[in-house]
Amino acid sequence: MIDYQNRRQKIYDAMAREGISLLMIEDCEGRRDPALRWLSGHPQDALLYLSVDRKSLLVPWDINMALLYGKVDMAIPYGEFERLPTAAIMGSSVKLKIPPGSKIEIPPVTPYPLFLEYVGSIGGSYDIICREGGLHREIEKLRAVKDEEEIHIYRRAADITNEIIDLLEKNVRSGKIRTESEAALFIESAARKRGCDGTGFTTLAAGPERSFGIHAFPPYTAGPFGGKGLSILDFGIKYAGYTTDVTLTFARDPNAAQEKLIVLIEKAYKLALSLVADGTGAREIARAVDVLFGKSKKLMPHGLGHGIGLEEHESPAIRSRSDNQWVLSPGMIFTLEPGLYDPIHGGCRLENDILLTGSGAEVLTTARIIRL
Amino acid sequence: MIDYQNRRQKIYDAMAREGISLLMIEDCEGRRDPALRWLSGHPQDALLYLSVDRKSLLVPWDINMALLYGKVDMAIPYGEFERLPTAAIMGSSVKLKIPPGSKIEIPPVTPYPLFLEYVGSIGGSYDIICREGGLHREIEKLRAVKDEEEIHIYRRAADITNEIIDLLEKNVRSGKIRTESEAALFIESAARKRGCDGTGFTTLAAGPERSFGIHAFPPYTAGPFGGKGLSILDFGIKYAGYTTDVTLTFARDPNAAQEKLIVLIEKAYKLALSLVADGTGAREIARAVDVLFGKSKKLMPHGLGHGIGLEEHESPAIRSRSDNQWVLSPGMIFTLEPGLYDPIHGGCRLENDILLTGSGAEVLTTARIIRL
Repeated sequence: MIDYQNRRQKIYDAMAREGISLLMIEDCEGRRDPALRWLSGHPQDALLYLSVDRKSLLVPWDINMALLYGKVDMAIPYGEFERLPTAAIMGSSVKLKIPPGSKIEIPPVTPYPLFLEYVGSIGGSYDIICREGGLHREIEKLRAVKDEEEIHIYRRAADITNEIIDLLEKNVRSGKIRTESEAALFIESAARKRGCDGTGFTTLAAGPERSFGIHAFPPYTAGPFGGKGLSILDFGIKYAGYTTDVTLTFARDPNAAQEKLIVLIEKAYKLALSLVADGTGAREIARAVDVLFGKSKKLMPHGLGHGIGLEEHESPAIRSRSDNQWVLSPGMIFTLEPGLYDPIHGGCRLENDILLTGSGAEVLTTARIIRL
Repeated sequence: MIDYQNRRQKIYDAMAREGISLLMIEDCEGRRDPALRWLSGHPQDALLYLSVDRKSLLVPWDINMALLYGKVDMAIPYGEFERLPTAAIMGSSVKLKIPPGSKIEIPPVTPYPLFLEYVGSIGGSYDIICREGGLHREIEKLRAVKDEEEIHIYRRAADITNEIIDLLEKNVRSGKIRTESEAALFIESAARKRGCDGTGFTTLAAGPERSFGIHAFPPYTAGPFGGKGLSILDFGIKYAGYTTDVTLTFARDPNAAQEKLIVLIEKAYKLALSLVADGTGAREIARAVDVLFGKSKKLMPHGLGHGIGLEEHESPAIRSRSDNQWVLSPGMIFTLEPGLYDPIHGGCRLENDILLTGSGAEVLTTARIIRL
């Protein structure tokens, strides 16, 4: 059982430390934030208000769903606030008895015009805080280090993923899977048969003609998969809310240029994995791979990896961008996914999910480059 | 062939009228905006800069994809700006020769802290505009009225949707589809076989046990579908980028309470459709349905409908919220989807896609309440 109350206690402590009386978390279309689920159990489409005197108020679109999933002190349907964010924050401040003059922190992704609306409606009574590096960032940091229950879920999610990887290899080899659609729908069905919520994101299945794209578009088609050249299959299954994220490359009769890509990707993957350690800057690992690729005059057009959890992409970022400050620590679960893409010869990517434990990197998943 | 240049001309005209020298459109994870695709042809993950002297510059994550799809004057990989939004806006202003002192409009969904970053980096040279009701709203209004090419696409998309609806009815009746997964994966596969990009959003298939939720969670499971009571199936297919959006309810041996829901939903749907006309306020239609439901002491926990297009939800909104100012006009394509949900007896929703033409409402799709 997940102890949502315990998670919220850490946030209440941080609120008290920072003098924030009311904290708002928002998960809605256009501004998804699984922190809402992480703190309340309610899956999505709701506002969550936490008060420094340790009360939680959920304002869901769907009250039936909230009664089923929400592990909170109170819930009020959003409809009672005419589904207006300014009415909801005003009503919640009253309900939670926030004294005038207090600080209210709203999400850092709040659009500038909406920020002005909040200020216009409650700025007279409250001090509205909207900042990078505030309490939402604190939640992000807490979420980046998985707790025991989450690691337990991930081990099961990885087992299912690995079982599906083996079946995919078998079915592509036997010719049972010959199209992108067949590969993708096999995963959808296999995941649900094993008790998953589904897939964590839309599966990308790109046959040799389309694997040159980082994110093939459309994600999968009725076209061929696994033929001569390089085919990429990027998927994750969602189990108890948590998504895995792996990429297989299938290589059939690779030519010299394709062979070179494969060797380089496997080398980069091993290099990256060898650098994973408690206390290492995530940026350093990504830079080492950049340097390796640079020696072959190649440039990876995406980051080396990213945290996974309730979201397909979360913290820590594993990329070489100069603003990446993440330092690895035990409990983090993240991908390593070196990839290179050639407009003529196609692309190659290898991606696995790594758990950093007290004794080093543990590779949870078994994705690989499969030579057909 | 879609004439992206023609679409951009309308925006350039609006820029000139409003004295905006540079307009930025952004489509990225967390801030999706299909206006980028609508104006450039590039499917997703890019920044688009339009200058008042009628030049377009695309800054894509994936340059290979941009070379294939982007119908623009120039493209520079985002990597050249170290994938930093402030570096990209600065570099693009230089590339497009925007004179210091000019007005630059950025998306209204720009988070407040990022807005401050833009101001910090280029605010000394330029006047940064971030507002509701600006040029992005202008684009939204243009997108809400579909052009001939889009209506042509929608007729084809509706035909495919209707074919799939008939097959779903047949397969649920025959017992070939007995689970939520089977219903959802049938749609995925049927759509791709007919040349669709895929589905427009994750299919919601909720058997009698789960149909009480507006948006069942998880969206579909390996559990039963089409058994005694009410089952809801909400899906859309994506064709040439455009999504349909329909909801079927399957009713098997409904009890008195379920029968009452069905009758009320069919009545509400007919009422709403009868009110669709050029010049009618979208809010009026939604309010009429609210009143009808109110007479039976029922409250619909979501809006009555919404525009569809490159997004599953776009303008015009068809809801009774007091800030809804949309007025219907020919060329608009939108859903009508009255729904009621009972925590014990389950839910019932009926949703079709409506095109408003010069001669009135045309119901494009054939979703219905199916009595098994």
